[in-house]
Amino acid sequence: MADAERKMTGGRTRVEFETDPSRYRHWKLTVDGEVATLLMDVDEKGSLFEGYELKLNSYDLGVDIELADAIDRIRFEHPQVRVILLRSGKPRVFCAGANIRMLAGSTHAHKVNFCKFTNETRNGLEDASAASDLKTICVINGTAAGGGYELALATDHIMLVDDGSSAVSLPELPLLAVLPGTGGLTRVTDKRKVRRDLADVFCTTEEGVKGKRAVEWRLVDEVVPGSKLDATVTQRAQEFAARSRRPADAKGIKLAPLKRTRTASGADYSTLSVAVAARLATITVRGPDAPPPASADAMVAQGAQFWPLRLARELDNAILDLRLNELDTAAIIFKSAGDPEQVVAYDRFLDSNQAHWLAREIRALWKRVLKRVDLTSRTLVALIEPGSCFAGTLAELAFATDRSYMLIGTREGDNKPPAALVLTDVNFGAYPMSNSLSRLASRFLANPADVDRAETESNKPIDAEQAAALGLVTFALDDIDWDDEVRVFLEERASFSPDGLTGLEANLRFGGPETMESKIFARLTAWQNWIFQRPNAVGEEGALRRYGSGQKPNYDTKRV
Amino acid sequence: MADAERKMTGGRTRVEFETDPSRYRHWKLTVDGEVATLLMDVDEKGSLFEGYELKLNSYDLGVDIELADAIDRIRFEHPQVRVILLRSGKPRVFCAGANIRMLAGSTHAHKVNFCKFTNETRNGLEDASAASDLKTICVINGTAAGGGYELALATDHIMLVDDGSSAVSLPELPLLAVLPGTGGLTRVTDKRKVRRDLADVFCTTEEGVKGKRAVEWRLVDEVVPGSKLDATVTQRAQEFAARSRRPADAKGIKLAPLKRTRTASGADYSTLSVAVAARLATITVRGPDAPPPASADAMVAQGAQFWPLRLARELDNAILDLRLNELDTAAIIFKSAGDPEQVVAYDRFLDSNQAHWLAREIRALWKRVLKRVDLTSRTLVALIEPGSCFAGTLAELAFATDRSYMLIGTREGDNKPPAALVLTDVNFGAYPMSNSLSRLASRFLANPADVDRAETESNKPIDAEQAAALGLVTFALDDIDWDDEVRVFLEERASFSPDGLTGLEANLRFGGPETMESKIFARLTAWQNWIFQRPNAVGEEGALRRYGSGQKPNYDTKRV
Repeated sequence: MADAERKMTGGRTRVEFETDPSRYRHWKLTVDGEVATLLMDVDEKGSLFEGYELKLNSYDLGVDIELADAIDRIRFEHPQVRVILLRSGKPRVFCAGANIRMLAGSTHAHKVNFCKFTNETRNGLEDASAASDLKTICVINGTAAGGGYELALATDHIMLVDDGSSAVSLPELPLLAVLPGTGGLTRVTDKRKVRRDLADVFCTTEEGVKGKRAVEWRLVDEVVPGSKLDATVTQRAQEFAARSRRPADAKGIKLAPLKRTRTASGADYSTLSVAVAARLATITVRGPDAPPPASADAMVAQGAQFWPLRLARELDNAILDLRLNELDTAAIIFKSAGDPEQVVAYDRFLDSNQAHWLAREIRALWKRVLKRVDLTSRTLVALIEPGSCFAGTLAELAFATDRSYMLIGTREGDNKPPAALVLTDVNFGAYPMSNSLSRLASRFLANPADVDRAETESNKPIDAEQAAALGLVTFALDDIDWDDEVRVFLEERASFSPDGLTGLEANLRFGGPETMESKIFARLTAWQNWIFQRPNAVGEEGALRRYGSGQKPNYDTKRV
Repeated sequence: MADAERKMTGGRTRVEFETDPSRYRHWKLTVDGEVATLLMDVDEKGSLFEGYELKLNSYDLGVDIELADAIDRIRFEHPQVRVILLRSGKPRVFCAGANIRMLAGSTHAHKVNFCKFTNETRNGLEDASAASDLKTICVINGTAAGGGYELALATDHIMLVDDGSSAVSLPELPLLAVLPGTGGLTRVTDKRKVRRDLADVFCTTEEGVKGKRAVEWRLVDEVVPGSKLDATVTQRAQEFAARSRRPADAKGIKLAPLKRTRTASGADYSTLSVAVAARLATITVRGPDAPPPASADAMVAQGAQFWPLRLARELDNAILDLRLNELDTAAIIFKSAGDPEQVVAYDRFLDSNQAHWLAREIRALWKRVLKRVDLTSRTLVALIEPGSCFAGTLAELAFATDRSYMLIGTREGDNKPPAALVLTDVNFGAYPMSNSLSRLASRFLANPADVDRAETESNKPIDAEQAAALGLVTFALDDIDWDDEVRVFLEERASFSPDGLTGLEANLRFGGPETMESKIFARLTAWQNWIFQRPNAVGEEGALRRYGSGQKPNYDTKRV
């Protein structure tokens, strides 16, 4: 169940992440040549859960799922688009931020997962800019409050109408006793580089900042008189489009609906299956059953059926489904089945077509999906067994885990070939983690030469004992020990405090440098999660619960 | 009061941070030429609060206060010491870590403040090594568990006896459902650079790791047979001493007891006063009343009375006193009184003697005290008024605040000279924050040229309007507006959620890069603070509360 305390609308019992523009209730996506417009026009009655209305373009997870879908579709279905205009369909309001009654009535787990997904969506906007040169301009005609301004902060250029009332604000602290936790504080200091004392003033001023001061404080990029808004927006869109390297003549591919069948124990997709039992979720990824296409054109013709794209989309959906709908799951176990050489063939195919827009988009999608895995608060385990295909891109799944077990040799009475890891070029930089390092560089912080040592073994099978010697897996075990060792480990893991594990893994997974992105998930999110537990915010007399009740919050005045 | 839920021992009502070796109950400090030995031999009955005994060299805040004092004393009183040996006075145990019953019975505020202070103490050990070339060798003869191993992690060299039972461990997660939160996880990944999956195994293995594996996994630097321990320790101490640049012939100064008088509203020190009223603490720092001494020898002769050292020690004590004993305080307001030129004269004196060990130690102490200010979870405010002396080192106090207000001109009927800021060389690198940047560089992240622009105005008075134009203060106000503006701000601040402010300030103060040190206070501590709220740890059926009761914890199995 998605959220024990709340009933979902429309008789649903799980959060579904798949959608498409024909089903959007909150966004309108229009494409006009190089420019796409994403119009936020939230349907008040279209909430994901019962008990609140999405007034004033406020949002819940359902609204953000549509936004994430729209950005992905622009990247894949409309490669000629160079600029996204983010606008509001409501008068006098851009976006009021996350819906407060939704937050006030949510479980702690839902709050945390909601923020994580919305953070990933905003990072996705920035990735569209950095990886695809797809620029976003935010046009604020009205108020952009809280999460509304945080959405603006994720774009490349913020325009604010200068009409004496339109303003940007982060009123979370004064109004609700929580943080602007969807990247807001980190983007204010680290992206917009607002001076820290002005940021303090801004974040404690309920009504926010407008007009020229908003530019002077670096909160927006420009203010524009209402009379000149449309002309200036057109001009900016043209300027950004002119600087973009997106392909002019590419034909997009259709992101067809995912093929998923719910089963008694989980779900089957076309490239993987999920089985949930005894608080363990096993994701078995299947390698390709055909060689890569002969040409980039043939890849485009395969479209969403092209194996790497299909798997990335299905894996993303599976991970999100587990995160939000299977809260009781202690660990996600990755297995794979297939021919490692076939997986490598697809990596090579994408490498040799890396100048092609679709190959680039697929690699960027894999990067985001793997980051989503890194940030999933479940123990991540790889079981690398005979017949598996943890090669190249799929080997990243093993490197994303907290622990990996690899079986030495074969199993008695089993004719599957011994497990082999295969490293390819993609394991050495194509898929950076949020700390900016590759998973192997993060793994071998102590001695970068260990990365080089692994690299010399690229493009050939690495058996279990060699993988252990290279430090690529945690344990290499033979058939005799395997079952017991793995069982004891998984039982032990399920016996630990889920919260303790969440904190432990959030620390051990991200050694080395921090980036703005990793700071959002570490410094900002961890503090926000703390605040989401504090009685001053979420208690009966706390600000989040009393908001709109006419009663002032009653704070414990002790500083911690 | 220090801690509402617990009674302090010995009839005390406040946590006192001042001590000296003659009063230590838990540590024995002996100095033998270049080598000092800090023997941890915790007095079970010497707890700070009632309700627990400090068995097996476990510690509470009182134990750590002595350790912090000892490190400072070695730096100032024994400048010839080049190596500190950290050893245990107990058989078969090095240190069992933070006392669990103490933690289980502490308020959330005390847990958080306890961890913050112990973190600062361990950072102090690393600072002794980095800034003073005073190296620390940890000799583990027995078990070093949890906080015991975290203490070892803060040293330069960890020696573990190879006797089949001595081990290092971080059993917090499996035993207590909390994190090794005193830097443990971050130092494992970022200092020792233990491979993340091995770190996962280590942190979930209650009994820890011993012998050769502890070296292979990078958890310790060497294992030594018991029979060779003393000889090897002596040899290592000599090796480290030989590489140290600490002065061979320097004569230390005595860190005399602080002069502090408690008053009805706070406390008076020789260089500052503290007044607490209406949830606001005002610290008024007084400039020197005499010019700096004529020579380095004269500075040594003044010893602890030398103004910059006296002020640093008194300020440190005042901040800690407010942190632990005045939890209800919303804001700390920094004021100053004195002649800015005199403050600058002391900065110049220390600059011109920067090769002298005592000048170096004083600068390093100021760096640590200013970091302690940065990390204090109270709103920090500077009120820069006529007659103030926010110059050089004291200007850093203003730059450490969340907001600063500077009065333009003079007050009616007041003959004090108009407020002036003075920048000196120390404002441009001598006192880095934990993010590695100077406070001015952190302030001007958007445009490093603003730092240069400020630097060209060094060594001359900067009045309020110029300071505002340079971005050095938040607001310049004239006498007419001052009282109302400041009052409204302080009232507003006191009306906000203290927790929300803690999270907000922890984010806005530390823009830009993260370091291992800042990661400890952000990623690790923020997660630990979250866990310190979770029922799985601190609830009636949680692991921390049930530890030692014979009952297993009962966990909510939902992952957040």
